[in-house]
Amino acid sequence: MGAACRPSVKTLCFELALAADGVDPDSPCIATTPAEGSLHDKPPGQSHPEDKQSNDMKSFRKELWFEVPSRFGFVNITDQVEACLRESRIAEGLVLVNAMHITASVFINDDESGLHKDYLSWLERLAPHDPTSAYLHNRTGEDNADAHMKRQVMGREVVVAVTKSKLDFGPWEQIFYGEFDGRRKKRVLVKILGE
Amino acid sequence: MGAACRPSVKTLCFELALAADGVDPDSPCIATTPAEGSLHDKPPGQSHPEDKQSNDMKSFRKELWFEVPSRFGFVNITDQVEACLRESRIAEGLVLVNAMHITASVFINDDESGLHKDYLSWLERLAPHDPTSAYLHNRTGEDNADAHMKRQVMGREVVVAVTKSKLDFGPWEQIFYGEFDGRRKKRVLVKILGE
Amino acid sequence: MGAACRPSVKTLCFELALAADGVDPDSPCIATTPAEGSLHDKPPGQSHPEDKQSNDMKSFRKELWFEVPSRFGFVNITDQVEACLRESRIAEGLVLVNAMHITASVFINDDESGLHKDYLSWLERLAPHDPTSAYLHNRTGEDNADAHMKRQVMGREVVVAVTKSKLDFGPWEQIFYGEFDGRRKKRVLVKILGE
Repeated sequence: MGAACRPSVKTLCFELALAADGVDPDSPCIATTPAEGSLHDKPPGQSHPEDKQSNDMKSFRKELWFEVPSRFGFVNITDQVEACLRESRIAEGLVLVNAMHITASVFINDDESGLHKDYLSWLERLAPHDPTSAYLHNRTGEDNADAHMKRQVMGREVVVAVTKSKLDFGPWEQIFYGEFDGRRKKRVLVKILGE
Repeated sequence: MGAACRPSVKTLCFELALAADGVDPDSPCIATTPAEGSLHDKPPGQSHPEDKQSNDMKSFRKELWFEVPSRFGFVNITDQVEACLRESRIAEGLVLVNAMHITASVFINDDESGLHKDYLSWLERLAPHDPTSAYLHNRTGEDNADAHMKRQVMGREVVVAVTKSKLDFGPWEQIFYGEFDGRRKKRVLVKILGE
Repeated sequence: MGAACRPSVKTLCFELALAADGVDPDSPCIATTPAEGSLHDKPPGQSHPEDKQSNDMKSFRKELWFEVPSRFGFVNITDQVEACLRESRIAEGLVLVNAMHITASVFINDDESGLHKDYLSWLERLAPHDPTSAYLHNRTGEDNADAHMKRQVMGREVVVAVTKSKLDFGPWEQIFYGEFDGRRKKRVLVKILGE
C-alpha cells in the first residue's frame, strides 16, 4: 500500500532521512498494513444501508500500520480513514482517529510540503531533540523525550463528524499521522460510532 | 446574531483591529449566520423527548459562521452551541465542535479579556507572524503560516459531554472560536450524537 | 482511594511540594472521591450484557475528584477510568475524559517519572509562572495565568475507543490528570457513550 505515500510526504521523508538518519532514500516512504478491521456489533446481513429508518448504533474498528523510515515524518491518512468509513457503512456519527503510540500524533491540517517542513522546524525549536542529555527521560535508555513533547503540541487524536456517509470536512482539512520517533512499525486506531 | 459578541471579546477585537489591521472599530465584532442545521436521522414526529425509554440514536449537525474583522480574535460560542443542543433534543451524548478551517481553533477556557490578550501575546512568542519570510509555507503566496502553528497549540476541536440535555461543564468552562487568520468568513461545525 | 497514587507520581509530587509549596511530604499525594456516578439511560434490570444482539445506545457519567497538594502534578487515572467502564457495562463506544477546570489537563502519555519532570520543566519554559505580573490575567487577583497556557499545550480532554469492554489502547498509553494550579479540589468528567 505504498500508494498512501503522497509526493509532498515522500519529499519530506527523503530530506529528513538524508539529513538525520542516513536511510536509503529509495526505500518506500511508508508501509501500511491494515489489521484487525471488523464490525463488532452485528452478524453479517443484519445491516441494510438502504434502511434509513433504522436507528441502531453501529461501531467499527480498524488499525492502520505505519513505518516511517526517518525519525520525523508526516503521512496523509485521509484516504485510509475514508476507506474505513465506507467499510463501516455508518452514515451519521463520529470517527475517532488516534495514535496508539505516545511519540506520535494524529492531527488535521493542510497537505502542503512547505508547511510540513515549517512544522518540523518549529517543533524542533519548541522541544529540541539535542542535547538528548537535557531530558531526564533519556536516562532510561531512550533518546526520544523530545518526541513526547512534540506529540503533545500536535495532539494524540482527532474526532471527525460523519455526515451522509462522508467525513464532514471543511475545504482544506486532511488527516495526518505525525511521526516523531520513527524507523519502526507503529499503529493508528480508527474507531467509528454511529448509525 | 450580533448578540454573540460579548463585551470582553468585543474589546479584544477592537484593540487588535486598531493595532494591526486598521479596521473600523464600530463594525460589528462578529457576524454569525447559522446554516444547514437539521436532524438527519428521523422523519418529523417520530421522536418524543418525553419518551425516556427510547434508546434510539440521534444525530444533529449545524454550521456556525464567523467573520472576525481582525487577523486574530476569540469569540465565545457557548450560547450558540447550547442553542444547537436544544434544537437537537438530544439528552445524553457527545457534542463535537470543530473549526472547519485549518488556521482557526475551537477551545475551552475562561471568558476573561486579560487572559485572551495573554494568549495572543504568548502564541505570538511561540509562533511569530513576522517575519513572514521565515516560513516556507508563505512562499506559496500565503502569509499565514504562523496561524497553522497557533491553531495546533490551541487545538482544532472540543468534545463535550451532554447530560440531561445540558452541556456538562465545570464552573468556568466556555467554548471559544479562535481566529488566527481572520477578515473572511469561516465556519465551525457542531455535530451532536446521542439519544 | 490513595491507591490511585502510583510511585512515580508520588515522587514527583513530593519534590514539587518541597521545592515550591512547603507541603508536608507525608500527606497523601492524591485524594480521590468519586461522585454522582450513574447510568442515566435505563431502569435497572433492562440491560443484559450477555445480550449481544441489542444495539441500544447507553450512556454513563461519573466525576472523579482530585486534590493535588502542590501547584503542579500529574496523576495516573487509567485505573479509575477503567473502573468507570466496567461499571457502565458498555462494550463498544467512546469514552470522553475531560478536566472540568480550565487550569488542568487530561492527556495520554507514558507513566515515567523522568518524563513527567521533563514535561514540567518544558512547560515552565514555554509558559513561565514568574513573573506573575507579566500576565494581564493576573491583574484580576489570580496568579495562575501560566496554568491556562500550560493546559492548552497538554490539552483539556482525551477521547478513547472502547472495544470489547476495554479501553482500546496501544502498549504504553496511560491517562493522566495534569494539574497546573493545585492545592484545591478539582474534578474530571468521565462520559461513556456506546452499547
